Amino acid sequence: MNKQVFSEAEVKQYYENMKNDSIGPLWHDLGHMVTKEPVHDVEPYLWKWKTIRDYAMTAGDLLEPGKDAERRVVYLQNPSLLKRGLVGYGTHTLYAGIQLLLPGEMAPSHHHSQTAIRFIIEGDGGAYTAVNGERSYMKRGDMILTPAWTWHEHKHEGTEPMFWMDGLDVGLVRTLAASFFEPYEGGFYPEEPPENYSTKKLTGGAFAAKGETVKPGYPSPIFNYTWERAQYELEQLSKSTDNEDPFDGYAIEYINPTTGGPADSRIGTMMQKLLPGQHTKSHRHVHSCIYHVLEGSGYTVIDGEKFEWEKGDFFILPPYSWHEHVNEGQEDAHLFSINDKPVMEKLELEFGDEYKDNNGHQPIEKVFQPSDSM
Amino acid sequence: MNKQVFSEAEVKQYYENMKNDSIGPLWHDLGHMVTKEPVHDVEPYLWKWKTIRDYAMTAGDLLEPGKDAERRVVYLQNPSLLKRGLVGYGTHTLYAGIQLLLPGEMAPSHHHSQTAIRFIIEGDGGAYTAVNGERSYMKRGDMILTPAWTWHEHKHEGTEPMFWMDGLDVGLVRTLAASFFEPYEGGFYPEEPPENYSTKKLTGGAFAAKGETVKPGYPSPIFNYTWERAQYELEQLSKSTDNEDPFDGYAIEYINPTTGGPADSRIGTMMQKLLPGQHTKSHRHVHSCIYHVLEGSGYTVIDGEKFEWEKGDFFILPPYSWHEHVNEGQEDAHLFSINDKPVMEKLELEFGDEYKDNNGHQPIEKVFQPSDSM
Amino acid sequence: MNKQVFSEAEVKQYYENMKNDSIGPLWHDLGHMVTKEPVHDVEPYLWKWKTIRDYAMTAGDLLEPGKDAERRVVYLQNPSLLKRGLVGYGTHTLYAGIQLLLPGEMAPSHHHSQTAIRFIIEGDGGAYTAVNGERSYMKRGDMILTPAWTWHEHKHEGTEPMFWMDGLDVGLVRTLAASFFEPYEGGFYPEEPPENYSTKKLTGGAFAAKGETVKPGYPSPIFNYTWERAQYELEQLSKSTDNEDPFDGYAIEYINPTTGGPADSRIGTMMQKLLPGQHTKSHRHVHSCIYHVLEGSGYTVIDGEKFEWEKGDFFILPPYSWHEHVNEGQEDAHLFSINDKPVMEKLELEFGDEYKDNNGHQPIEKVFQPSDSM
Amino acid sequence: MNKQVFSEAEVKQYYENMKNDSIGPLWHDLGHMVTKEPVHDVEPYLWKWKTIRDYAMTAGDLLEPGKDAERRVVYLQNPSLLKRGLVGYGTHTLYAGIQLLLPGEMAPSHHHSQTAIRFIIEGDGGAYTAVNGERSYMKRGDMILTPAWTWHEHKHEGTEPMFWMDGLDVGLVRTLAASFFEPYEGGFYPEEPPENYSTKKLTGGAFAAKGETVKPGYPSPIFNYTWERAQYELEQLSKSTDNEDPFDGYAIEYINPTTGGPADSRIGTMMQKLLPGQHTKSHRHVHSCIYHVLEGSGYTVIDGEKFEWEKGDFFILPPYSWHEHVNEGQEDAHLFSINDKPVMEKLELEFGDEYKDNNGHQPIEKVFQPSDSM
Repeated sequence: MNKQVFSEAEVKQYYENMKNDSIGPLWHDLGHMVTKEPVHDVEPYLWKWKTIRDYAMTAGDLLEPGKDAERRVVYLQNPSLLKRGLVGYGTHTLYAGIQLLLPGEMAPSHHHSQTAIRFIIEGDGGAYTAVNGERSYMKRGDMILTPAWTWHEHKHEGTEPMFWMDGLDVGLVRTLAASFFEPYEGGFYPEEPPENYSTKKLTGGAFAAKGETVKPGYPSPIFNYTWERAQYELEQLSKSTDNEDPFDGYAIEYINPTTGGPADSRIGTMMQKLLPGQHTKSHRHVHSCIYHVLEGSGYTVIDGEKFEWEKGDFFILPPYSWHEHVNEGQEDAHLFSINDKPVMEKLELEFGDEYKDNNGHQPIEKVFQPSDSM
Repeated sequence: MNKQVFSEAEVKQYYENMKNDSIGPLWHDLGHMVTKEPVHDVEPYLWKWKTIRDYAMTAGDLLEPGKDAERRVVYLQNPSLLKRGLVGYGTHTLYAGIQLLLPGEMAPSHHHSQTAIRFIIEGDGGAYTAVNGERSYMKRGDMILTPAWTWHEHKHEGTEPMFWMDGLDVGLVRTLAASFFEPYEGGFYPEEPPENYSTKKLTGGAFAAKGETVKPGYPSPIFNYTWERAQYELEQLSKSTDNEDPFDGYAIEYINPTTGGPADSRIGTMMQKLLPGQHTKSHRHVHSCIYHVLEGSGYTVIDGEKFEWEKGDFFILPPYSWHEHVNEGQEDAHLFSINDKPVMEKLELEFGDEYKDNNGHQPIEKVFQPSDSM
Repeated sequence: MNKQVFSEAEVKQYYENMKNDSIGPLWHDLGHMVTKEPVHDVEPYLWKWKTIRDYAMTAGDLLEPGKDAERRVVYLQNPSLLKRGLVGYGTHTLYAGIQLLLPGEMAPSHHHSQTAIRFIIEGDGGAYTAVNGERSYMKRGDMILTPAWTWHEHKHEGTEPMFWMDGLDVGLVRTLAASFFEPYEGGFYPEEPPENYSTKKLTGGAFAAKGETVKPGYPSPIFNYTWERAQYELEQLSKSTDNEDPFDGYAIEYINPTTGGPADSRIGTMMQKLLPGQHTKSHRHVHSCIYHVLEGSGYTVIDGEKFEWEKGDFFILPPYSWHEHVNEGQEDAHLFSINDKPVMEKLELEFGDEYKDNNGHQPIEKVFQPSDSM
Repeated sequence: MNKQVFSEAEVKQYYENMKNDSIGPLWHDLGHMVTKEPVHDVEPYLWKWKTIRDYAMTAGDLLEPGKDAERRVVYLQNPSLLKRGLVGYGTHTLYAGIQLLLPGEMAPSHHHSQTAIRFIIEGDGGAYTAVNGERSYMKRGDMILTPAWTWHEHKHEGTEPMFWMDGLDVGLVRTLAASFFEPYEGGFYPEEPPENYSTKKLTGGAFAAKGETVKPGYPSPIFNYTWERAQYELEQLSKSTDNEDPFDGYAIEYINPTTGGPADSRIGTMMQKLLPGQHTKSHRHVHSCIYHVLEGSGYTVIDGEKFEWEKGDFFILPPYSWHEHVNEGQEDAHLFSINDKPVMEKLELEFGDEYKDNNGHQPIEKVFQPSDSM
């Protein structure tokens, strides 16, 4: 077939016209649209617990939940994403806030299409979260689900200030244009099932009323995943080095017993235990994470940068970034993390590989300096 | 098409030849092979607890499990099925035996393709069943699974004689020519997980080691379904007549939390509570049952025959038989039953209907007289 | 604990009393109830096609379907099961009949809880089976499903006598007391979808009306499994010895594309191709089979007995029986078979093993002599 | 509890410090992060076929696939998203390009984590797409899947220029940082299965080699969804107004027969038929769409703006936008569309509602003017 030949000027005009007509030449742009490896704007970051806690405590004086605000929360704002105008983003998909509830306070019922988990940082069981009216009393180290669109509120019946981490998929839901929110008319959802029924309901068997249909699936029948139980499982696991995961030490995932999948349908949750001196190998994966240090001290190397952490700190693991963990302390370290792996797996987009060189260890090129303006 | 015409003698010879050649004329036999409604040989029956218990106690003197016998069990033999040469049949699919274990005794490990449940009749937690090494201490009213082909043994560490019901699908497996049995070489399977781990393992969350695959399905992750818990659920249920089942009073089914289906994959288990004076309506269904009276007294009408029962008794409900229950006592009655409904449902053969006349109540045509030769 | 000691007479009396009270001592009977390996009454058998066909042709003169009989079928009666009073049994679960439909005849609509397949022995597409009104024209070698409880009828619009095999789970449904049957009121179910829509409906894509729920499962969306297509798949498969199955030559199973499981939910169907001279190894399995020789000649050894077969013959493979196949002809042999494997698999009762000695070949101890009284 | 009181200056300093420390006050930002309804940057748009086609034809002279470029494609660039720097976005998740393949040309094999569908605009079956080596010949109106990470190439063996739409989830995969791409080493993947095997393979039954595991799921076993078949289904559907969908006329979705779900796991595909004069009601939903007019002329109202379309045109439906369709022509109109509904449904984020006022019809506030610089 004879092809027409164009002058340079004609070609230039052709591309200008295309642009005006909102049409693009794939042969110029394919490499940007379908990249050989993931491209993103998320950078790693770390916040010190002392800094976060101080801001939250001051907020304790400034406002009251249910009165001055829906919730009293300070949130982690990843500066690399704020540059792109993305407010409330820890990673491109995940958000983490730190909520403070003082004795006698109540945060009213609402629900939203974002899914949420709570991880208790300070708490002795004197306060609870209710999910569709089912109360779970909250102790340090517990993880509590408030699955997407379930009504939930918090009440403090105890005597000590109570802190917890809120993990939500704010970025994901914003990006997919799927945010819906409603406060509960009348303030508080009726609290009916017996206290801590969530914890009790699979103890000593599982039952259904005759003719009742019980379907495996989401939300999980369990809302409260206790630290007592997680700790027990990690103890069993870490009795044998056979159970060691090369990248995460000794690690357990919180699951939905009816599916075997993650406890929440969109946010993954993991607890890992690093023995004193344990130094894991590097790998990377499509899913991103926000880590919280439940206890211990050490550091994590992310794409060649060293992030030193101690009890209470939070840090960001961007998607597809090399990372390895080190426990530098004399005690076991426990890292709790949330991730968007369930989303990547549902969409068949999860992929990962291992760092091959240098026995799996990255060279450290710089050390992160945490910020503290207070 | 012209059809050949045959003499009567020729036709007779034709049928005789067919028979000799092991060929049958469907036009004669269709009505027997594909019946309009279920046809079977199972008749209802009832055994008194005192009778059964006495035979078992005498067996306690006659033999010792693991020495003189694999197990010390007296079993319920439906006389209508013994006539057909079917030894060990309660219904065409189900078997029930009563096992006695005395303090200090042990019944060694074995496994078989028959699936089994235990229902504790007398026991205070001093003895246990171990399933693949996981111990469940047994108390009155508990139901314990030993799913098909799992290793299981029983040990008595307590001080009182211990009685329980064994429910197995002996008839089904015999009929399908699928019986396999093996004793455990060496006597006892290693008992490793912590005591009562079966009961604890879904308390306070569900976890999996990172990378571990947990699949919903059988066997159930729970082995021990406690009476404490079943009782609690029935109490909740019976608070409102909205929850009343017209045919079974207040009834719960033991389920596998990972599937929402029955606790065991082939034997269904149900507990029903009848309030004093409660009289249910009649229905019938393809599945058959063996009932055990946990507590209370009353009667059940089966195809017009009255079966009076009290605490400890056992009785047979044949397939597709009309039945209704009455609590004649001053206290709540609790009936535990096993059934083959999971089999019928898996094979898409379950069907049932309701007794329409006389407000759902059958006329009583005779009263069953229990046998006691002792 | 001190045990009571009984005299021989007391013990004897004890057992007599038990028997009278319909109670059994498990220590005497366990070995019969829970056997180490499957026990059954099914013996292998073989019928010659000529014999069967002659009986059917005579029936063509004796009666007319829809008039003198529901269907014109001669069925295979396993003599070992007739001895037990089991009429219409090929194996303990499966039935096979041979149906004859003459030009212009119609067999009226009915449905039953038994599931059924048809395998066309003689037919050129001039007759059809309609399943819930959807017509499938029948050619030699096609397999047509009429799943349990679907309305089905047969009509002959062509010119040649038409023979097919009916395969039903008569024994299974009888044993489980779950037989239901209904004729269609008015004779014939409305035949609406376009001709051979069953065959066309997955050609060129799969579609659902917007909002329509399409669930994977049973019945299969395909009713007509053609010989043309089965033959093509076997040709592809037999191009490489890598695809050879040691026990069945080159074998394909008819599947339900929405589940990946068997085409019918309770009766398995398989076609195997044996190349000239091919001699498979022996194995055995819990599931039983009825074989039909589509083409070729050879023999099958079942538990040491030789069954010689040629085109059109039928034979029985009992449960858990050693068997191996040999093609003694110059042409490919094709064996079609039905089995109860789906039942065994649903109930988790399937098991099998391989014959280890003599390179997988059984010694032949006797040769079966087919019966022919005509 | 006594609360500390802060001066205005102290409060101001508090918020400044927080910002410096990359921490945010949720009580200021919650309303932007968790909105009451979806918020997004996607605006509707429409491109004329003539414009697109001309650009593509000129590209036919400018470059050759496999030589000057991976593919010869002009793509639809939504100007509202280009403003945000998002190159290659039709909606926030979806991309559409128009590919031209000339006789004798070949576009080499590659694969990518983006999933893709093709919809044939001009083509007579002379060219094919091969998916993992399985060829599907392409005719006008056919839809062909190239599921994520499958190898695929295109070859033209015919005589006429061939145009098709490429639909990919470029935006989604970019946003989730999950893009992977590889060219096939050596240029072309081996093309082994028989021609059009994709179309044939569910015709006349479904089969699996004995012992082969066939699992329902993705990718769909069918790659080529023909217009012939889609048209047939729409004809059947539109025979009765009972089948009319209030919002989409007569509409079918392309499904994966093994799951009953969408043909592709992440991109939904729908064909709708509007009868002459048909005017649907308005609704909105979280999922977004790109429409292509297969035939007919009319308009669509999107959030009060009128988009007039005729054969070949493309237009964008943003997420959660009111829309209704009108066929203004004398002939049936057929609209093909791709959407991200499978993603929203997998993530449990789909939601929609109906336009209640004015009998479901929006007032038209403006008319879109298409751009054409050529």
